[in-house]
Amino acid sequence: MSNVTLKDIAEILGVSVTTVSKALKDYKDVKKETREAVRLLAEKLNYKPNPLALNLRNKESKTIGVIIPRIDHNFYSNVLNGIIEEAESRGYLVIILFSGDSAKLEKEQVELLKDKRVDGVLVAVATEAKEVDHLKELMRNNIPLVLFDKVVEDLKCSKVSIDDEKAAFDAVTYLIDSGCGHIAHLRGPLPTETYTNRYLGYKKAVEAAEIQFDPSLVYVSEELSFEDGYDLAKKVMSEHPEVDAIFAMTDLVAMGCLAFCKDEGIKVPEQVSIMGFSNWFMSRNSSPKLSTVDQPITLLGKEATSILINEIKEKKEDSRSLYRSVKLPTKVIARETTR
Amino acid sequence: MSNVTLKDIAEILGVSVTTVSKALKDYKDVKKETREAVRLLAEKLNYKPNPLALNLRNKESKTIGVIIPRIDHNFYSNVLNGIIEEAESRGYLVIILFSGDSAKLEKEQVELLKDKRVDGVLVAVATEAKEVDHLKELMRNNIPLVLFDKVVEDLKCSKVSIDDEKAAFDAVTYLIDSGCGHIAHLRGPLPTETYTNRYLGYKKAVEAAEIQFDPSLVYVSEELSFEDGYDLAKKVMSEHPEVDAIFAMTDLVAMGCLAFCKDEGIKVPEQVSIMGFSNWFMSRNSSPKLSTVDQPITLLGKEATSILINEIKEKKEDSRSLYRSVKLPTKVIARETTR
Repeated sequence: MSNVTLKDIAEILGVSVTTVSKALKDYKDVKKETREAVRLLAEKLNYKPNPLALNLRNKESKTIGVIIPRIDHNFYSNVLNGIIEEAESRGYLVIILFSGDSAKLEKEQVELLKDKRVDGVLVAVATEAKEVDHLKELMRNNIPLVLFDKVVEDLKCSKVSIDDEKAAFDAVTYLIDSGCGHIAHLRGPLPTETYTNRYLGYKKAVEAAEIQFDPSLVYVSEELSFEDGYDLAKKVMSEHPEVDAIFAMTDLVAMGCLAFCKDEGIKVPEQVSIMGFSNWFMSRNSSPKLSTVDQPITLLGKEATSILINEIKEKKEDSRSLYRSVKLPTKVIARETTR
Repeated sequence: MSNVTLKDIAEILGVSVTTVSKALKDYKDVKKETREAVRLLAEKLNYKPNPLALNLRNKESKTIGVIIPRIDHNFYSNVLNGIIEEAESRGYLVIILFSGDSAKLEKEQVELLKDKRVDGVLVAVATEAKEVDHLKELMRNNIPLVLFDKVVEDLKCSKVSIDDEKAAFDAVTYLIDSGCGHIAHLRGPLPTETYTNRYLGYKKAVEAAEIQFDPSLVYVSEELSFEDGYDLAKKVMSEHPEVDAIFAMTDLVAMGCLAFCKDEGIKVPEQVSIMGFSNWFMSRNSSPKLSTVDQPITLLGKEATSILINEIKEKKEDSRSLYRSVKLPTKVIARETTR
């Protein structure tokens, strides 16, 4: 067998190319038995690192990998639009994988992308991923990595996200300034950082206005659905008839609240103000039109991709600069459901 | 320079690897000057086809390419969910490209995917693509191709789409059976086949019921937006006050019609029935709840991917069977906006 490659060895042994490469360098994170098997086979097949192959390996594949939990109706579909537009305009192809919010799948997908020799990776970290060794491993392999949306603060890489805490702080402050004093918050499920940050923004805004923070005014929407909004608004109004504003986690949940108020004859915004979050395109089509917080979702995708491609270029030129941590600003869009 | 590859020659000359490969085989669709330049350079560099490389080329890359116009809020985001889920479950990666409905871009992207050695390609053909030589070329290169959603009927490859004409026929027949006799149709812009097929279904249903077909009851929604639906409903009701049903191109357009009727105090469905199309998840959240046509969108993506991967496997086993042409069935979902 002439011109034996890492891939041939990997295929014969049924392990990944990365494992073979590491085994030959005697990396300790490869099992001892595997390291020995690889070395034995390499010797037997007279494997020699191919200088041209090494060279090719350093060439760009002009492909980036993206791992997201899934595509939804608003957020990730818009982020992907930004990612693919930016990548296409700069001559890169995009491989997309769904982690389904599973840390285990995310880990496997990082391996897969490494084997595919992508030039860089974008990850919206799985909600349940607490262990990030697979991401650190990417960086040790000198593959540029940018986290977006769901980021891990203490990982040393570039990150792009929405400043959720400030966004929620601004939205709730707007409600307080318009005269509301009993504000319920419908938050997303624990432990997602995004949802927790919005909750913290809500809490800070209430406290900054010297209103007593009442934890019983915070409700969890498990599904973040229209139906959830409808049912939770019902619960809020029966448990806390004094409530004069609802700050909902997303526009869809807010639209559920609005539907409940309409069905019950509760006047919006005269009796209850409703504030959504995300400026989903349908929010301007409700009646009355929904007040909300505008998030630059497509820009989030573009920005993350732009930073990644810059880092790929810097790596090529051996000029890597510091990691960027970008928090994109949001703005309150006051329409007709707030005073 | 030892071990010169097709890629090296391609890079030196600034042409694609496919072009180099074809030039060496003297294919006539490569310009004569290019063929000569390639042969000259190959000779100079002492290029020899690498048997191992040839072998690798026949191996699967376990990657499929997908070309869609863009990601929207409902249709393509759900199709992609189906595609990526099916591909992941069968061990394939997905590269996604946006054609922006441009035939020129679509052509370039097919070239790009060929260079990337994807195992197969899924295409929702660009609206303006009348010339399909680039798709025929893919098939000549023995790369499995499946068209989905927007298909080209006379191309000999597998196709998966919604049976739009029958879907529209069923929806309009439902309206007629419920007692409507003056049915307006808000169609999508020409020349898209999907929109034309729905229009033909509408026309056939009207004629089948022996109602005189009136072309002035057919309106074109250019943007297929909520606002378009609102404005067109206004136009319909002022130009044709006798209208007792509107069959809209999409749920979003239908929801615009519904908003107009509400604002004007027109009773739905007592005075005017409204039928949407697509069973968008928001359609069940309107008040009254929207009647619509359910399209199996995620299944469309899954089915197209499944057929493609089967064809990739058949190709490997040299057992290619006949091309499949699948028309997925739809069903009318009667909610509260129809009688």
